[in-house]
Amino acid sequence: MTTHLLEKKLAIGVDLGGTKLAVGLVDSEGAIKKQLFYLTDVKGGVHSIEEQIKLAVEELKMVANGAIAGIGIGVPGQIEKMTGFVHFAPNLQWRNIHIKANLEKQLNLPVYVTNDVRASAMGEWIFGAGKGYSDIVCMFIGTGIGGAVISDGVLLTGCKNSAGEIGHMIIDLYGPSCTCGSRGCLEAKAGGWGIARNAQSLALLNPEKATRLIQIAETIENISAKTVVEAFKEQDPMAKTIMEDICESLIAGATNVVNIFNPQILILGGGFVDGFPEIVKIIEEGLKKKALKIASKNLIVQKAALSKNAGVIGAATLSF
Amino acid sequence: MTTHLLEKKLAIGVDLGGTKLAVGLVDSEGAIKKQLFYLTDVKGGVHSIEEQIKLAVEELKMVANGAIAGIGIGVPGQIEKMTGFVHFAPNLQWRNIHIKANLEKQLNLPVYVTNDVRASAMGEWIFGAGKGYSDIVCMFIGTGIGGAVISDGVLLTGCKNSAGEIGHMIIDLYGPSCTCGSRGCLEAKAGGWGIARNAQSLALLNPEKATRLIQIAETIENISAKTVVEAFKEQDPMAKTIMEDICESLIAGATNVVNIFNPQILILGGGFVDGFPEIVKIIEEGLKKKALKIASKNLIVQKAALSKNAGVIGAATLSF
Repeated sequence: MTTHLLEKKLAIGVDLGGTKLAVGLVDSEGAIKKQLFYLTDVKGGVHSIEEQIKLAVEELKMVANGAIAGIGIGVPGQIEKMTGFVHFAPNLQWRNIHIKANLEKQLNLPVYVTNDVRASAMGEWIFGAGKGYSDIVCMFIGTGIGGAVISDGVLLTGCKNSAGEIGHMIIDLYGPSCTCGSRGCLEAKAGGWGIARNAQSLALLNPEKATRLIQIAETIENISAKTVVEAFKEQDPMAKTIMEDICESLIAGATNVVNIFNPQILILGGGFVDGFPEIVKIIEEGLKKKALKIASKNLIVQKAALSKNAGVIGAATLSF
Repeated sequence: MTTHLLEKKLAIGVDLGGTKLAVGLVDSEGAIKKQLFYLTDVKGGVHSIEEQIKLAVEELKMVANGAIAGIGIGVPGQIEKMTGFVHFAPNLQWRNIHIKANLEKQLNLPVYVTNDVRASAMGEWIFGAGKGYSDIVCMFIGTGIGGAVISDGVLLTGCKNSAGEIGHMIIDLYGPSCTCGSRGCLEAKAGGWGIARNAQSLALLNPEKATRLIQIAETIENISAKTVVEAFKEQDPMAKTIMEDICESLIAGATNVVNIFNPQILILGGGFVDGFPEIVKIIEEGLKKKALKIASKNLIVQKAALSKNAGVIGAATLSF
């Protein structure tokens, strides 16, 4: 009996991105036993992606050589809370997809579907930087900026399961336009696409001042967040100016979530943080100046611990 | 037995402001049976305010002529979650006050202490505009701007009980300074004190353009949010300019909380909303343009229903 209780459970986590698909066999301590990677076959449609997941699951089932608790999937889109119904996932070109029902039928295992950002947050909460905390805000800063909030041990979903959209928090009222139709959203200022767009505009207006940026990227249209970070590390003055606005924006966004949610820990992850980990300290220092004392005094600010595996591990936790 | 079950319970709600103190006898259907008003004796210190509350409670006990479930108090400050200990209440000049323990000893009734904004939100949730909803954001726009959030039937508190501080949400990164040390906070742009400060600065810079504002207020230093609203209603061009920024700011603040919390209903209350109820429609229209479709599509935007009684009624609900 004791042996049985000590045995680790296994589950499968699926991180379904618009470009890459990762499927991992994860144990109940958050360790990935085996992981498979694919290029997501978006063009092939829903059926083709389901096939990719199915094949991976079959392979991992053999590796597991025993019971699998279930399959969790993180989907980059709007998911219905209880049914896992996908309303809209733009990067997958999915609308109204019964992915949970479809896969359960084919795989004969319980399937849990959640938003990709929430999956990563679950991973960080249960096995990563947020382990042991009950009040957590996760900010994932990549091409876009996503967020997830655990308040008093509960992951906030909102009435339509869309809570946590911190990327579309307006922090610069009269700032640059955003894809959402608004202006001055956090991700229009400090998300990868926003940084690239803003830096390219500046380079078009001041090509001489942007010489280094253009050199690194080769063309103005190629200037990306990565270009800006690279030039900034070389102390390029224009990159410095751009970076100052990015940092101020991220500090403002972090200040807002800290004041609003009063978490124990703010976890910062995503491609931008991986590429420029110094941002964690910069945000932490900024919070000391800008957030309310009561909310910032004992606040822990930390880099996400699971990095690119957070999605797979977090999705798998849905089954535990 | 049936009669007993149908009998309405009674509780006492205390709305303890820096200027006014209201103490009401409230039944379990949210009706105020009797209410007493005082000027808060801040100068007299904690003991004096406790005496004011005690006298009011004794009087209401006689009116009740029966069992009182308890006393709820809304305090404008930072309260410890379980103990009701008041860390800091600037308008009362209180620091580290055991108000719950003190009053329980003296009144022989259970005493519940919460933040004043939360008390009003409780009132609106249980008996006001939020009745029957489980996902609610309250924005109270007065001298400052306060907020409270109910998510899936739970009032969010945060780890230090300071969640909901939407007044210090940065919406205008490089905007005017705020009392909190930050810049461009929502209340520095659209709270009563922020509006007054900004309008006075503009009037000092352009006294000719501010003629009507100065006429109404008599002096520049007297220009208040009320002055701006009054001049705006007369179509004064300068007031219109100021009001546009206020509306844009409030729309941005509302957009942010709607995107972040995805509530069923956004309740707008406070002195500014009472004095300019048209703002509810303006914010609703703004949200349709700026908030994410999924969060705004079925969102209800409504004026607070209990007006100035929300604090007393809400505080009383803590006992039910």
